[in-house]
Amino acid sequence: MNPSPAQPPADRAEAAPALEYLLRIGDTCLVHGQRLAEWCGHAPVLEEDIALANMALDLIGQARAMLTHAGAVEGAGRDEDRLAFLREEREFRNVTLVELPRGDFAFTMLRQAVMATFFSGLWEALAGSADAELAGIAGKAVKEARYHQRHAADWVVRLGDGTEESHRRTAAALAQIWPYTAELFDTDAVDEAAATAGLGPRWSALQPAWQQSMEALLGEARLPLPAPRAFRSHGRRGVHSEHLGLMLAEMQHLQRAYPGGVW
Amino acid sequence: MNPSPAQPPADRAEAAPALEYLLRIGDTCLVHGQRLAEWCGHAPVLEEDIALANMALDLIGQARAMLTHAGAVEGAGRDEDRLAFLREEREFRNVTLVELPRGDFAFTMLRQAVMATFFSGLWEALAGSADAELAGIAGKAVKEARYHQRHAADWVVRLGDGTEESHRRTAAALAQIWPYTAELFDTDAVDEAAATAGLGPRWSALQPAWQQSMEALLGEARLPLPAPRAFRSHGRRGVHSEHLGLMLAEMQHLQRAYPGGVW
Repeated sequence: MNPSPAQPPADRAEAAPALEYLLRIGDTCLVHGQRLAEWCGHAPVLEEDIALANMALDLIGQARAMLTHAGAVEGAGRDEDRLAFLREEREFRNVTLVELPRGDFAFTMLRQAVMATFFSGLWEALAGSADAELAGIAGKAVKEARYHQRHAADWVVRLGDGTEESHRRTAAALAQIWPYTAELFDTDAVDEAAATAGLGPRWSALQPAWQQSMEALLGEARLPLPAPRAFRSHGRRGVHSEHLGLMLAEMQHLQRAYPGGVW
Repeated sequence: MNPSPAQPPADRAEAAPALEYLLRIGDTCLVHGQRLAEWCGHAPVLEEDIALANMALDLIGQARAMLTHAGAVEGAGRDEDRLAFLREEREFRNVTLVELPRGDFAFTMLRQAVMATFFSGLWEALAGSADAELAGIAGKAVKEARYHQRHAADWVVRLGDGTEESHRRTAAALAQIWPYTAELFDTDAVDEAAATAGLGPRWSALQPAWQQSMEALLGEARLPLPAPRAFRSHGRRGVHSEHLGLMLAEMQHLQRAYPGGVW
């Protein structure tokens, strides 16, 4: 096996915390958007099919902006396409939750509520970043995330406080999703450095508002809050579930088959 | 988009019927083996998990031999790996049936019975090929195909003539699979040329024995023979279902990501 020319040094997180921080956000948008786009043509009603595709496009747009900016910060000539299509699984920095298979509609909507609530708080904080480019991206993205949040929250209440079957499915989705939310707020040297530099918030700083918002939503949806678990996912450090590799194989195929291909 | 360097001329079938004939067989083994291998770790009982993995390996072995031979006949320096991993969807010559998703266990076993019955007749005929290399491959493969056939036929009877649920599923699988079997015996200039040259049989020559065998099996399994349909699949001509592209994205990812990589 040839060594990958794109393999980062093991200490990249220490060497370039700003780049890591931006990739963690950009990759989470990218992988989340890719999963959401899988609903295209498959949603239960046409209106929702189009809504999900539009929200996927919002996320891909945010990913493009973030990866372009990350590439500029890195200064090694990697553009958005190279970062999206020519990195390997272990180089992706998305949180694990967004790479889990799309599941049923209840799973998708509950994950969407979890992530959009997280992103609303994140973009809001990033709008005050010392990095003017990042602040600009965040100022646009926060409006999209808030709309995603409202839309998903409506569905979570409708499904959780709905029929016996929709309640059962939403409760099952919650049991599956909840353990992965811990990773969203796990703090390490990367976001510590970002906070110190005024780049953006520590992840842990986003937890109280998220927790309050999710508890209110789950209460309205008649879904009991799951107990905390010791389980931790580590996608942000590049340690992914079995699902990301297969997603990347599909997502990267065209660029791998036609290196350098453009529209 | 860059043009593919591996794109064959549109008239390749006329220019090189022997190569086409060999690819049709080799690609069908390859794609069938890849689908069967998806059961690894997922079969309903451990014994069957191992059996399916072993049969997948038989098919991959047959594919390797056939693609290596096809590459030698072509004389353009394409080895088994290059043919398997660096051709595009439209260049694959497998019959459409084998690229359909693996479905449930009943679907897999019925497809296995259909294909192993087909291959038993095909390898038997090819064992008398004027091409000594091909005859040698066939002489080994026929034993494997006959074992696959017995194994799958046992399951089809057990499932078809089993519980209400297993019968329902096997009947549903038959309704889905049967229309795709017509392609197995559709004759064109490629197998006409192969027959004339003594390379191997016309596909249509394999139908009577296959039909007799399948009718006996379906009768024993209490599954009524479906009516013929006008539908025709055309995988052998490179016109594939929506499923092959996704399979190739996964199957080819490593070789596309690490061009020239070897063990």
